[in-house]
Amino acid sequence: MKIAILGYGNIGRAAEEAIKAAPDMELAGIYHHNDCLDCIDADVVLVCTPTREVQKFATLLAARGICTVDSFDIHGQIWSLRSSLDAVCQANHTVSILSAGWDPGTDSMVRALLMAMAPKGLTYTNFGPGRSMGHTVAAKAIKGVKNALSMTIPLGTGIHRRMVYIELEDGADFKTVEAAILADDYFAHDETHVIPVDSVDVLNNVAHGVNLVRSGVSGETHNQRFEFNMTINNPALTGQVMVSCARAAVRMRDHGEFGAKTMIELRPIDLLPGSTEQNIKALV
Amino acid sequence: MKIAILGYGNIGRAAEEAIKAAPDMELAGIYHHNDCLDCIDADVVLVCTPTREVQKFATLLAARGICTVDSFDIHGQIWSLRSSLDAVCQANHTVSILSAGWDPGTDSMVRALLMAMAPKGLTYTNFGPGRSMGHTVAAKAIKGVKNALSMTIPLGTGIHRRMVYIELEDGADFKTVEAAILADDYFAHDETHVIPVDSVDVLNNVAHGVNLVRSGVSGETHNQRFEFNMTINNPALTGQVMVSCARAAVRMRDHGEFGAKTMIELRPIDLLPGSTEQNIKALV
Repeated sequence: MKIAILGYGNIGRAAEEAIKAAPDMELAGIYHHNDCLDCIDADVVLVCTPTREVQKFATLLAARGICTVDSFDIHGQIWSLRSSLDAVCQANHTVSILSAGWDPGTDSMVRALLMAMAPKGLTYTNFGPGRSMGHTVAAKAIKGVKNALSMTIPLGTGIHRRMVYIELEDGADFKTVEAAILADDYFAHDETHVIPVDSVDVLNNVAHGVNLVRSGVSGETHNQRFEFNMTINNPALTGQVMVSCARAAVRMRDHGEFGAKTMIELRPIDLLPGSTEQNIKALV
Repeated sequence: MKIAILGYGNIGRAAEEAIKAAPDMELAGIYHHNDCLDCIDADVVLVCTPTREVQKFATLLAARGICTVDSFDIHGQIWSLRSSLDAVCQANHTVSILSAGWDPGTDSMVRALLMAMAPKGLTYTNFGPGRSMGHTVAAKAIKGVKNALSMTIPLGTGIHRRMVYIELEDGADFKTVEAAILADDYFAHDETHVIPVDSVDVLNNVAHGVNLVRSGVSGETHNQRFEFNMTINNPALTGQVMVSCARAAVRMRDHGEFGAKTMIELRPIDLLPGSTEQNIKALV
């Protein structure tokens, strides 16, 4: 299958490595957002643009009958994006897999599976330690901040601490900047610590992690306990998940299962190379 | 949807509780292996018989166009059972979900997902501490053993210790029985300890656990680490997983996706009650 990449940041680069490592895929080109999309000849385009540009590009490509995979990560807007893309995919006999990263994405699959195993109970998804892109961008936007890094620290039960490392602009006052960060809506609801540093660059690290726990009830039996942990290189995992989902998109398109799908609507086996028989014998 | 139960041991009883707790299901009867299967009126029959009788009953029911779910657990025979049931399901426009427990079953889904996240690397599934049914039955079959319990203790990297608690028959010699157990093919390959006890009954406990770990490579990035842990009531989880799979069987049948499927061939969302929109908004 021929897989192209649109957008060549951290995720696009990681996706390129995952395509090259896949036994059943060929890289069909790397495109930038201002390239001509009519020139793309691929089964699937991985939309690795900033998340707010995903809808525009996925829609354009789906309208041309090309499968897409994205890692759109604004949780509250996923259903609306799916609805809009689904209509375009159905009309053009193609498949779009959206929000294909680790959260939303593979964590979503784990949360769904745990619900099926213990339908009543509580699931907590604890993120980090790792860099939050959204919070880092919010901190950088504060007046007086030259560069910033916001780390997400898990405190359990879905509560997180924000550790915000900032490099000040010349002449900026730390106390004023700190107050502005603490008042920002991104930080106002969590325990937040602002720490001045000489260089943010030397702190950068794409490591991230998840600790996802559920305690629930199977039938009438309480105290069923589940935990999913990972410590990972963030863009490498996102790129790999997108590439595995590209495989599922082609399989679904070839079976006439058109539409826009989130990862909880995919069969795990469709993410993997190899035959049904090989995968069942190796994994079941 | 109307769900019946065939076989009323530990798993059948747990499945009954899970059906009664499900918002979208109705219990359509509990049957024993010698009951008349022609009398069953249900969308799905949960085949809760001993594993070696699964093929016979699932085949009979599928031939009548009834969906089935079983928790067939002989790993080496799953592909062959799937092939045989698949033909019957295709011919009779029905769905059979096989090996729907926690291993094989939900662990298989986790293993498949981890392969998609980090295609190169090693996965180890560590079981226990918990009772192994197969090893317990093997120990009970040894001459001189009145009752037995074989516990599986995880030692990591998929290696397990067997702790075998035995109640001797009157007049049996412990050393002779111990030697026979250690020589049995079920125990000869693992570290095994045989311990005489006055009563096996007071040791019984259906708790079990899993620690499933993978260290792998996403794209070209090594050191991606994943771990899935659970501590559970074994029959309660198996019964619940079978009931959740019954829901998937009905949905697949209603969409014309006939055949025999293992859990890695199911969409996680199909295991859950509620609409696509509700589940995507709650879980993705």
